[in-house]
Amino acid sequence: MDTNAVLDLMWVLICGILVFFMQAGFTLVEAGFTRSKNTGNIIMKNLMDFCIGSIAFWVLGYSLMYGDSISGFIGTPSLIFDTAADMHSLFFQTVFAATAATIVSGAIAERTKFTTYLFFSLLMTLVIYPISGSWVWNSGGWLAQMGFTDFAGSTVVHSVGGWASLVAAAMVGPRIGKYNADGTSNAIPGHNIMLGALGVFILWMGWFGFNPGSQLAISGDNAIAVAGIFITTNLAGAVGAIAAMFVTWIIYKKPDISMTLNGVLAGLVGVTAGCAAVDTVGAFFIGLICGIAVVFSIEFIDKKLKIDDPVGAVSVHGVCGALGTLLVGIFATDGGLLYGGGFEKLGVQATGVVAIGAWAIVTSFIVLFVLKKLMGLRVTKEEEIDGLDIHEHGSNVYND
Amino acid sequence: MDTNAVLDLMWVLICGILVFFMQAGFTLVEAGFTRSKNTGNIIMKNLMDFCIGSIAFWVLGYSLMYGDSISGFIGTPSLIFDTAADMHSLFFQTVFAATAATIVSGAIAERTKFTTYLFFSLLMTLVIYPISGSWVWNSGGWLAQMGFTDFAGSTVVHSVGGWASLVAAAMVGPRIGKYNADGTSNAIPGHNIMLGALGVFILWMGWFGFNPGSQLAISGDNAIAVAGIFITTNLAGAVGAIAAMFVTWIIYKKPDISMTLNGVLAGLVGVTAGCAAVDTVGAFFIGLICGIAVVFSIEFIDKKLKIDDPVGAVSVHGVCGALGTLLVGIFATDGGLLYGGGFEKLGVQATGVVAIGAWAIVTSFIVLFVLKKLMGLRVTKEEEIDGLDIHEHGSNVYND
Amino acid sequence: MDTNAVLDLMWVLICGILVFFMQAGFTLVEAGFTRSKNTGNIIMKNLMDFCIGSIAFWVLGYSLMYGDSISGFIGTPSLIFDTAADMHSLFFQTVFAATAATIVSGAIAERTKFTTYLFFSLLMTLVIYPISGSWVWNSGGWLAQMGFTDFAGSTVVHSVGGWASLVAAAMVGPRIGKYNADGTSNAIPGHNIMLGALGVFILWMGWFGFNPGSQLAISGDNAIAVAGIFITTNLAGAVGAIAAMFVTWIIYKKPDISMTLNGVLAGLVGVTAGCAAVDTVGAFFIGLICGIAVVFSIEFIDKKLKIDDPVGAVSVHGVCGALGTLLVGIFATDGGLLYGGGFEKLGVQATGVVAIGAWAIVTSFIVLFVLKKLMGLRVTKEEEIDGLDIHEHGSNVYND
Repeated sequence: MDTNAVLDLMWVLICGILVFFMQAGFTLVEAGFTRSKNTGNIIMKNLMDFCIGSIAFWVLGYSLMYGDSISGFIGTPSLIFDTAADMHSLFFQTVFAATAATIVSGAIAERTKFTTYLFFSLLMTLVIYPISGSWVWNSGGWLAQMGFTDFAGSTVVHSVGGWASLVAAAMVGPRIGKYNADGTSNAIPGHNIMLGALGVFILWMGWFGFNPGSQLAISGDNAIAVAGIFITTNLAGAVGAIAAMFVTWIIYKKPDISMTLNGVLAGLVGVTAGCAAVDTVGAFFIGLICGIAVVFSIEFIDKKLKIDDPVGAVSVHGVCGALGTLLVGIFATDGGLLYGGGFEKLGVQATGVVAIGAWAIVTSFIVLFVLKKLMGLRVTKEEEIDGLDIHEHGSNVYND
Repeated sequence: MDTNAVLDLMWVLICGILVFFMQAGFTLVEAGFTRSKNTGNIIMKNLMDFCIGSIAFWVLGYSLMYGDSISGFIGTPSLIFDTAADMHSLFFQTVFAATAATIVSGAIAERTKFTTYLFFSLLMTLVIYPISGSWVWNSGGWLAQMGFTDFAGSTVVHSVGGWASLVAAAMVGPRIGKYNADGTSNAIPGHNIMLGALGVFILWMGWFGFNPGSQLAISGDNAIAVAGIFITTNLAGAVGAIAAMFVTWIIYKKPDISMTLNGVLAGLVGVTAGCAAVDTVGAFFIGLICGIAVVFSIEFIDKKLKIDDPVGAVSVHGVCGALGTLLVGIFATDGGLLYGGGFEKLGVQATGVVAIGAWAIVTSFIVLFVLKKLMGLRVTKEEEIDGLDIHEHGSNVYND
Repeated sequence: MDTNAVLDLMWVLICGILVFFMQAGFTLVEAGFTRSKNTGNIIMKNLMDFCIGSIAFWVLGYSLMYGDSISGFIGTPSLIFDTAADMHSLFFQTVFAATAATIVSGAIAERTKFTTYLFFSLLMTLVIYPISGSWVWNSGGWLAQMGFTDFAGSTVVHSVGGWASLVAAAMVGPRIGKYNADGTSNAIPGHNIMLGALGVFILWMGWFGFNPGSQLAISGDNAIAVAGIFITTNLAGAVGAIAAMFVTWIIYKKPDISMTLNGVLAGLVGVTAGCAAVDTVGAFFIGLICGIAVVFSIEFIDKKLKIDDPVGAVSVHGVCGALGTLLVGIFATDGGLLYGGGFEKLGVQATGVVAIGAWAIVTSFIVLFVLKKLMGLRVTKEEEIDGLDIHEHGSNVYND
């Protein structure tokens, strides 16, 4: 293997490690933002979606995404990946697939049956994610052919997870005590926001694998591109946090901790599609817009739609994923509306956002509908009130 | 230095950083799985075994392991390592040595004298670990000469730590309240399984340094091998977790959190010996077998042997380390029993497992026996009941 | 871009990721060493100094530090960095700048106004840090021209943060209840030393980016230098911890957990200036001296100066940063006093330490004096007693 190929492979592996560690970040954010009686269940769901996803993607999922594209809609299936020369690719794509799956666990936290979740998570990484992923990241995919830009997965990964979260949270229904008889919403505070903050730092670090790793190379002039992606990624996360903080400062009169943390994630999710297509100023505005949007989106879903999403996953990953993908049509230095490119690119971006959103919503609805009939989605009232840890897993996370 | 050498050195350093961070993972797992009154003592033990190990390996340990082999049994000693061209090797091997030492601290948690532990830990990294390590990883070592395969240390690192844990836990005796008069065992729940889960995620990440770094190179075709090791490592960890979860689901009727976390580690420890010698299917089965074995081993040591190992270190590192090393003789694509290799390789693997196991058991017994006579192994009853933090260190970890 | 340039750029990016993650480490240390009622405020301050710093350094700070030097005292200002070929440098230097800023948040924890902190932090990364940084790390800087050695920033980063901490902690005044009427000092224990320990492990890992990354290259013989820096860095951290532990064992009769953790940081801060200029034995002694010094310095500042520094930031970063920089004049293998170099190098080192110390003290005094007049430095007595989280941010970090 020549030096450039070694460099590229090594870069993909290193970035894959960082993306793997995002699983810890998601676990911490979801655990921190929910109640202590359900922490063990959150640990188990996050651990299992990665474990199941690792098997599922190796057995079948990878081929459905990256096998020779069949008419642009699906890769050619093949069982048990064993191409020695592409193991780095399997690793990198596996940790991406697991990210899409893990997003859902937060949105349905504190009231969903563990067994049902395991089946849902399996189908996410085995079928739902790889098929829509093949439309964009398989070179023969129909959206790839159209010129749709989603460099590292604002839509392919995050909004698929986000829209699945929306469907799942709506179908499972709100937690007991979340909504009052008059329709008003109660805040259910997370048990340990310090865990959430550590999780956000870990996720931010992970994004330096997620986005720059999606270049899939670092040799030659790829290195310049990779370094640029570090900066666009970092700026968007930073501005997202500042924007969300000031919005809450204005509307709640105080700078809110949880919303600021979600602002980081909003900016990072938003810039993921365009991190290689926009310049630093573009990244700044994508972060700004997503950081503002996430606060209003969380409020809207909570108070108007009355869908109970304990960690804000729908807003962070679904809304900001879609928004960030659209904003590539505005800010891309090559073809963006503000850079003289007209509406064409924006149209293509909108097509991809809508198509993949529809796919994620429809397929996750079907899967959850069937699972509901077969085994039910929700724990009993008693289990929910006592906590899932003691009923589903037979132990508490916190003791003396 | 030419480009290939730079690549290899860089790879070893990056992997070494990941292995270093496993110290944090071990600290979190051990702290989380024990009681809050002893958390500070666990922090200090884990911190000190790395600090002492770093000095000990630099001053003498490295040379005992990697100096010119004397008859295959020990490296030529030399004081204070200062070969500029091999500093990356010193770093990588130091973090490995510290891993072997740190395994023991969990098994003897909550009742062992801090001073005694410091001496034991010093002797682990100064003498016990490097000498048996030289048998395998020094090119002149007698097991290396026999063709014993322990690529990244299921036996050299983990089982040495695991068997030393067994001896130490047996000699220190069980915690007060662990066993009833009728011989039955009480569960003593850990104070914060969330810390344990974070620790397991960190350890899993660390394993992407531990195993792929043990290639000691990434240039040329090493890159292909390294990428393959990522996948075998990851699959075994994932399957180990799933296997342990289902076993507990069957025998306890609920999927157990702590056992599932230990299942991850069991799979990872198990595949460490053969990660470069087996294919993905082999890794799957090694993870499966170790994930099942760890549950029964923990139960057996706890309930039948009545040895109190608060974190399951003996089962995870000792039993699964040995088992994984033996399984190379079954699953190695070159020479394994199931791949037409007959029993020869299996015999060599068994020889290494037994020889190094005997070495670890005998030397740690001698060291602990002497330390028991000189200074005692165990804190007083009062200190144990009140907690080691307040008595040994004069403060509590948790306050308002 | 040629292979060597790719390797160097990649190395700088990877190291930058590790330094980025130090933000999580600082947050954990500061949160763990203070009370739970102020944890959210600590999260927000640490998050914001990185977010604000990322913007400030991109907009102006980088150019003030690395633009063409104007008479050795400041870089040529230029707005909004957009040199594609140097984005890796912007990333690496941004995470360094944020480190200097974040040090201060610990020293003034639990009683400082959030808004005031935001302005102070902005000015740190926008002006204070980059200007003195340009004296050393801009090739045209006056201290660089004198031959001042501060390889990775014991003085440029840590002591700037440390001296600003000293000024800030003195001006904000001690926390309510810290000092008694007779002048004696009360210990105010941190709420979760486990968080602090995890933070220290993360910081230690981060230092493997901080110091070896400051080589700014790894191609060719840089690789040898980089590997050596790993070992000097690691040894100093390890010895620092052991030294601090034994000092507390002697003076308090018990090995103290918090001081030992600070001993790690003391050794690491101390060796940062000379990690590439000393050999392993020199690193050992730098760690030893700093590990001893940090304990006495913390006691002196707390009990004699009566300045309330909740996390020991002044001692760790200011005192050990200055001390480590001076010790380069003693231990540098090329020009150090003990290596036959006479007093010349020591004199240059002292000049740099004093000049940059004076700069940090004077500028942070001016900034804080103005901020005090404009908006006040300190929260009200009621806010401090109830906790900053509920008053400044409207929520608690810890709930059920």
